[in-house]
Amino acid sequence: MNKIEVCLTPELIHQHDLRGKLVVVVDIFRATSCIVTGLSHGVVAIKPIGSVEETLSLGEQGFVMAGERGGEKVEGFDMGNSPFEYMDEDLSGRKVAISTTNGSQAILKSMDADEILVGAFLNLTVTAQYLAKSGKDVVVHCAGWKGAVNIEDTLYAGALIDALQKTHDILGDSAFIASQLYQANKHDLLSIAKESSHAHRLAGFGVIKDISFCVQVDEYDSLITSKDDFLVRI
Amino acid sequence: MNKIEVCLTPELIHQHDLRGKLVVVVDIFRATSCIVTGLSHGVVAIKPIGSVEETLSLGEQGFVMAGERGGEKVEGFDMGNSPFEYMDEDLSGRKVAISTTNGSQAILKSMDADEILVGAFLNLTVTAQYLAKSGKDVVVHCAGWKGAVNIEDTLYAGALIDALQKTHDILGDSAFIASQLYQANKHDLLSIAKESSHAHRLAGFGVIKDISFCVQVDEYDSLITSKDDFLVRI
Repeated sequence: MNKIEVCLTPELIHQHDLRGKLVVVVDIFRATSCIVTGLSHGVVAIKPIGSVEETLSLGEQGFVMAGERGGEKVEGFDMGNSPFEYMDEDLSGRKVAISTTNGSQAILKSMDADEILVGAFLNLTVTAQYLAKSGKDVVVHCAGWKGAVNIEDTLYAGALIDALQKTHDILGDSAFIASQLYQANKHDLLSIAKESSHAHRLAGFGVIKDISFCVQVDEYDSLITSKDDFLVRI
Repeated sequence: MNKIEVCLTPELIHQHDLRGKLVVVVDIFRATSCIVTGLSHGVVAIKPIGSVEETLSLGEQGFVMAGERGGEKVEGFDMGNSPFEYMDEDLSGRKVAISTTNGSQAILKSMDADEILVGAFLNLTVTAQYLAKSGKDVVVHCAGWKGAVNIEDTLYAGALIDALQKTHDILGDSAFIASQLYQANKHDLLSIAKESSHAHRLAGFGVIKDISFCVQVDEYDSLITSKDDFLVRI
């Protein structure tokens, strides 16, 4: 059996040795849900960016500029961080530069891994199938919220553990806790997701529709991986 | 209603503002369980120490030297980190200097708080009663294992949240996750505690008896607080 670990926030990622492993980065509300949605609707590649300035610079090179800070669209960007914006037909064939509070940072902190995958409930099963066949150990890297642990990313980690139970054993207490959280709530992901601090914060921006969409399981069969600094569908 | 937050490991304590609040430090396996046990059996005061060297120096001043590194007694110390050692009648009236991998560090990182309490399942209810009457917000500071989140301290945080539901609302996702872990396992604390990485590690040292003892609820009615660098019973 391979192993699956969970890192509950990027602030604890130094406790995990990523070398030789597959890392699944997850930021359910909303970066990785947006990335999966965009690449499923015709966006050709997405570049995760740390800073607003670098994103604006890529905008001058023809990238669509996307992202948020503190849950709101950055001024001057073409779009924010709602998955529904990523369904726009005008994005088909375009490249997107995305800079977000948490998701981009988690991707950038996972570079030691053999491969970085982008996980969301939206593409849960196709991701699990790929991991199951990989023969490699897995680390789920939860983006959290400004360094803090959050419910929705931990819940996803538990869902992935559940989907990998035939090939990957739990390693470490964080993975065990994530698994327990998922098992206790798997029949009603929306209710528990709404309990998250992040959901409460987003509700203030009127994006309850986003929250409901982001907990849909297997809306897409898009496997998303990192290749040459870009996130692409394979 | 007051608030109760949970810090899942000392590495995340900077995310919590401790000023004006009561902090409950918990290290179920085994530092805080030992401290509660010792002060319930006649030890007059316990001084938490970061380094082995400082502990040895206090030994020369008449302190009983206690503690472990990596789960094993430190060479030259009088005792290790088993709660049963803390029941020894010879300790009555003595002061103990204790240096442990995780517990002492969490206490030393909580100094900004209005008051630091020492929590364990062994003194759950008396601690909860004190907090309920305090009219102050509470932070549960889980000692974890070498910076990593662990099951047993998170479980205790959830138990304390449960005991404070009439006076303290949950604040933050870590507290919510801790609460869920406890609610799903409250009828069999021992089984889940045995799942912890820490328990597996301790089992290697033959201390299953310690593990069973440390999940006993309300074995003592000793409220333990920090006063002038010492932990004492009040």
